[in-house]
Amino acid sequence: MGKSLCLSLCFLVLFHGCICIAQQQQERQQNKCRISRLSAQEPSNRIQSEAGVTEIYDHNNQQLQCAGVAVVRYIIKPRGLLLPSYLNAPQLMYFIQGRGLQGIMISGCPETFQSFQESQQGVQQVGEQEEQQGGHQFSGDQHQKIREVQEGDVFVVSTGVGHFIYNNGNNRLILVSVIDISNDANQLDFQPRRFYLAGSPQNEFQQQRSEDAQQQEQGQEQEQEGSQGGPQESSGSNVFIGFNAERLAEAFNVDAQLIRKLQGQNDSRGNIVRVEGGLQAVFPQRGQEEQGSEQQEDRLHAHGNGFEEIICSLRLKQNIGEPRRADVYTPLGGRIGGITSFDLPILKGIVKLSARRAFLYKGAMLLPHYDMNAHSIIYAIRGSAKFQIVQNQGRTVFNDVVTAGRVIVVPQNFALMMKAGDSGFEFVAIKTDENGMINTLAGDLSLIRAMPVKAIASAYQISEEQAKELKFNRMEASIAPGRFRSESA
Amino acid sequence: MGKSLCLSLCFLVLFHGCICIAQQQQERQQNKCRISRLSAQEPSNRIQSEAGVTEIYDHNNQQLQCAGVAVVRYIIKPRGLLLPSYLNAPQLMYFIQGRGLQGIMISGCPETFQSFQESQQGVQQVGEQEEQQGGHQFSGDQHQKIREVQEGDVFVVSTGVGHFIYNNGNNRLILVSVIDISNDANQLDFQPRRFYLAGSPQNEFQQQRSEDAQQQEQGQEQEQEGSQGGPQESSGSNVFIGFNAERLAEAFNVDAQLIRKLQGQNDSRGNIVRVEGGLQAVFPQRGQEEQGSEQQEDRLHAHGNGFEEIICSLRLKQNIGEPRRADVYTPLGGRIGGITSFDLPILKGIVKLSARRAFLYKGAMLLPHYDMNAHSIIYAIRGSAKFQIVQNQGRTVFNDVVTAGRVIVVPQNFALMMKAGDSGFEFVAIKTDENGMINTLAGDLSLIRAMPVKAIASAYQISEEQAKELKFNRMEASIAPGRFRSESA
Amino acid sequence: MGKSLCLSLCFLVLFHGCICIAQQQQERQQNKCRISRLSAQEPSNRIQSEAGVTEIYDHNNQQLQCAGVAVVRYIIKPRGLLLPSYLNAPQLMYFIQGRGLQGIMISGCPETFQSFQESQQGVQQVGEQEEQQGGHQFSGDQHQKIREVQEGDVFVVSTGVGHFIYNNGNNRLILVSVIDISNDANQLDFQPRRFYLAGSPQNEFQQQRSEDAQQQEQGQEQEQEGSQGGPQESSGSNVFIGFNAERLAEAFNVDAQLIRKLQGQNDSRGNIVRVEGGLQAVFPQRGQEEQGSEQQEDRLHAHGNGFEEIICSLRLKQNIGEPRRADVYTPLGGRIGGITSFDLPILKGIVKLSARRAFLYKGAMLLPHYDMNAHSIIYAIRGSAKFQIVQNQGRTVFNDVVTAGRVIVVPQNFALMMKAGDSGFEFVAIKTDENGMINTLAGDLSLIRAMPVKAIASAYQISEEQAKELKFNRMEASIAPGRFRSESA
Repeated sequence: MGKSLCLSLCFLVLFHGCICIAQQQQERQQNKCRISRLSAQEPSNRIQSEAGVTEIYDHNNQQLQCAGVAVVRYIIKPRGLLLPSYLNAPQLMYFIQGRGLQGIMISGCPETFQSFQESQQGVQQVGEQEEQQGGHQFSGDQHQKIREVQEGDVFVVSTGVGHFIYNNGNNRLILVSVIDISNDANQLDFQPRRFYLAGSPQNEFQQQRSEDAQQQEQGQEQEQEGSQGGPQESSGSNVFIGFNAERLAEAFNVDAQLIRKLQGQNDSRGNIVRVEGGLQAVFPQRGQEEQGSEQQEDRLHAHGNGFEEIICSLRLKQNIGEPRRADVYTPLGGRIGGITSFDLPILKGIVKLSARRAFLYKGAMLLPHYDMNAHSIIYAIRGSAKFQIVQNQGRTVFNDVVTAGRVIVVPQNFALMMKAGDSGFEFVAIKTDENGMINTLAGDLSLIRAMPVKAIASAYQISEEQAKELKFNRMEASIAPGRFRSESA
Repeated sequence: MGKSLCLSLCFLVLFHGCICIAQQQQERQQNKCRISRLSAQEPSNRIQSEAGVTEIYDHNNQQLQCAGVAVVRYIIKPRGLLLPSYLNAPQLMYFIQGRGLQGIMISGCPETFQSFQESQQGVQQVGEQEEQQGGHQFSGDQHQKIREVQEGDVFVVSTGVGHFIYNNGNNRLILVSVIDISNDANQLDFQPRRFYLAGSPQNEFQQQRSEDAQQQEQGQEQEQEGSQGGPQESSGSNVFIGFNAERLAEAFNVDAQLIRKLQGQNDSRGNIVRVEGGLQAVFPQRGQEEQGSEQQEDRLHAHGNGFEEIICSLRLKQNIGEPRRADVYTPLGGRIGGITSFDLPILKGIVKLSARRAFLYKGAMLLPHYDMNAHSIIYAIRGSAKFQIVQNQGRTVFNDVVTAGRVIVVPQNFALMMKAGDSGFEFVAIKTDENGMINTLAGDLSLIRAMPVKAIASAYQISEEQAKELKFNRMEASIAPGRFRSESA
Repeated sequence: MGKSLCLSLCFLVLFHGCICIAQQQQERQQNKCRISRLSAQEPSNRIQSEAGVTEIYDHNNQQLQCAGVAVVRYIIKPRGLLLPSYLNAPQLMYFIQGRGLQGIMISGCPETFQSFQESQQGVQQVGEQEEQQGGHQFSGDQHQKIREVQEGDVFVVSTGVGHFIYNNGNNRLILVSVIDISNDANQLDFQPRRFYLAGSPQNEFQQQRSEDAQQQEQGQEQEQEGSQGGPQESSGSNVFIGFNAERLAEAFNVDAQLIRKLQGQNDSRGNIVRVEGGLQAVFPQRGQEEQGSEQQEDRLHAHGNGFEEIICSLRLKQNIGEPRRADVYTPLGGRIGGITSFDLPILKGIVKLSARRAFLYKGAMLLPHYDMNAHSIIYAIRGSAKFQIVQNQGRTVFNDVVTAGRVIVVPQNFALMMKAGDSGFEFVAIKTDENGMINTLAGDLSLIRAMPVKAIASAYQISEEQAKELKFNRMEASIAPGRFRSESA
């Protein structure tokens, strides 16, 4: 429009010069969701560390940008420690395999875990009371609560909260993390930014910037004044490296030698490091307290003001893989469970994500449906399924098989249908709303069922008898069994 | 793209000079509100269907983009049905004329409307109990609640909720719908997207895209793989067309012939279709239940989880045209009524819009005022008025007569004054906040009244006597009568 | 990229003239926080008025754009009045020096301040009752509540609310105002826009637009139709100038002569004007009511609907400078106090800002920390400090001394450490969240303290003994005293 105007304008004044203002006012990028084709992504980058691997799905990909998220998968070897860090956005982790320990660090939350409680506490009370008052030194240890996590757990970490993960099992610990960079809680730009607190790891998201952006940033970098000790050559490091070492020594009240270690200088282990001897002794055994009184544990009151209490005592974990937690179950089809802000209050207003976990048996079909209020980031866990995804004008934007390990985004309101392959299909879907809701287009709870038969007949130009077939022939709610046709058909 | 054009253009005029300003991607588009001139818009596009007309106000217009909304007007003939669809954003409809039925479809909400209750229910209980358990088939019908609507009603539909409208009156049903595409609930891009569930209607918003955007999308489309049955030639269709017909037949458990109808193939009726014989028998009569116990009806509990209950039982409708609902009334001037989240809880946090409905008598003046916290999308219903709208630096951005059928946006905080013409003026103003608030600049509740006389005198360099004139001479609150001057003047 | 193309293009047509403006502003501007270097800003613009000075910090500066705020400092002489106005965004003011009166004007809030209460009220009741009913005229005055403010006060004004400030003290009244233009409550574009209600002051933010934007706007302005009485030549004026004078005279029911004064024609006093004789007599004395029953006063119920009550009775003020309000206190180091939505409910959901006020003694150190959920806009009040600020990859983005009167933004999650100079350091930090939270990286409440000793040892490749030093050697929570090393070191 602007152009044609501009063109004619130019022709008019052709022999006398031309003023052409081509205002091109681009697309609106609330989120970039002009999607005409989706794809099931594999990780685009892989970072090998001492005790594990970090696999990154390209967050500059159109569909992840549409959803406003970044996706990372961590594979942590036994006794591997994902170094402590914090992020500029909330994340929802799903633990695919193994078991581990998740440490959460928030200033002012109470140090309720006191190690060697029985053997050492006595010593403390008797022999070290003075020391404790003088310098908080005692031969035991105390720290903030550490949570056990295992396969099937959803774990949520909010913006700016320090956290680390340790594999205390005997097998690899595998988790996928969805980082909601378009969340209100992220007030920085639209990039995932991880602030490491230890080591000197390569930044997993840096790789992914467009070349332009990197050039631009490097350009600005050259103008930079007063940067001291910053790693111009290497792309990664922890935040302490940016501070003056002497100042840090004063701040921590330790000698400069130790600060060099704090700053992670000459550390080439990457972001997942091996813990010699293991950390297991420090933590409570699952059987003892984690299982029986989990809820109660989580509500332990902190000292400090009311707000710290709220933050410190929020529950962060929920298992959504167990069969007994299924919300939908079709005997020959499969089951679906999930988690919303009603289950895990931290999702409400703070993290604003929810998740569903589905198990489809061989040949079972997830009936056509759409997400009413959220994008759905689907991570394929096991097996495979044929997906069909349709946009508002009826165009098929995806029509392919999705296999284990792939990530695909189903944009809000786009219609999705899938049919599990011969080995079934399992996936977890993270929704970009604290209460992801689904409308189904076929089956017992579908929109078709909600309409009067006469309206259906008129809308589709069919007889009322046919309208009733559309409305009532599929009895199941979300999953249609694969092998047996419904008896009423 | 803009650049290449600009380039060739410049070569054309090479020997005559060229000024080429390629402004690509302007600054800041929180909302595009660099408005230096407003206009009262008419529909830019008109789509004729079998039983009605859809009129679209160009949502790429600067002022609608500033407000972040799209506006559509529907004119539905008697026995016309606006096909079921859902949208990527919440909408607030105002019914200008006629009466109709509004169907709302949400998965899992209860099917509380059971037709032929007396005659058929007995039959069901006796003869069809087995069938009902077997295949949910019985000769009657049951569906989700359908609401009666009429002139003066505000009706709200939230994001992703299926809905249809049927004209069960004897006159044309006319409604204007404001779609809040900048609402948080829309996680897609900044385009209104309607997903039709039936028919093969032309997409009312597609027309409006810039040519660039269409070219781009078509370009992407050509790369598209695996699209089957998609309507490459036609711009419109319902979402079912994008799915494989066999799969759909399996999902619905019906034969493929019926699926073709579901997909709307060869349907040329448009988005408003005629219902032969009418739908009227299926619905309760207004006198019976809608009026007396409306509130109670709306609170009918659904089965399912708590959230479904909340969603299913929310009230969606409120009449704001009736004189008794006026909030402001000046005997010789007119009256204003409205609706906020205090009146209709679904507006709170979910739809985030509110509305005011004003009736100004001949020559009456709406005193200078501004919207504190919202844009105001004004739809002129009857008559005409002279508007003056002023921006922050005192520039007049609009100074013209607005006539019935036109839409004008008054941006947040811009000051507005209007004077009704000889036949009076009626309008509805949709506000982009769940609780649109107004500050008046003259009259009984004005900001001038809020200031001490001495501050007024100093601010305007006038005597205290004059300050009192400014403060007290206009007694009315919002509307000044046109014909008679206030006695105290 | 766009520019180089444009450049070559220009050379091509070099002999024929070419103006090529290629504005290519980048993708994603949730907030522009690609910051590689920060700076401590001084005001970029200074507007002298009759009774004071307005100093503006360039809000197009990268770091203020990152934080999404504009910052202005007002210096008001005794008996100076900052003219009434309203803004398109909420603002948080901090009063640095002096005392004054803050008037707040909202349509429909009650006029609870009635002047000359004792001497006039009797007269009113007897002699002017009829007049009062006839035309609301009586020889006294009544207006909405006016608040006293003084050094150390935070005062909050929400979007679109009219307000004025008067200096009723004997010294200059100095305040700094942070305007949160990226707040949801601002639905216009990303520019601060002040709507003056009196005078003809130069727009303090207009100056700052890029020349392009101004040209563009002026271009559009020329096309403008029907603008009457608009000040094409001058950049500033109040909103009344944009209305037709006759219409305004009808609206206010006064003569046209007075309207010219209302429109601020020929007013060259600027935005801060002198009040001859002073306003002091109109207001209650602090001793009487403001101090004792402040809270109660604030809760005075308004007439009108419930929402007006809420808005009218919200408390807007809180002193955060007093020592007894400190949240953190280290005897030899200093103290920090603050305000969040828990202290001042209007911050919750409406204004969405919070603030901290810190006093650091000579040589004291604010331990390394970061804002979890907000940007921090720091205004240096007295003294100086050496700042170090570090981004996510460990790069130092600021390493310099910040002196009184400067403003610096610390982006969300960026790590900050500072050490006060020889005369100590005082600052106020406004946070872009209603509940700004901080995580410290060293000291008693730090994230290091939250970790198990074994995890620290592994993360930093140090012995457990060293890990304990890092963890326990600094006892203080946020501030380390400057002169004395901790005894336990």
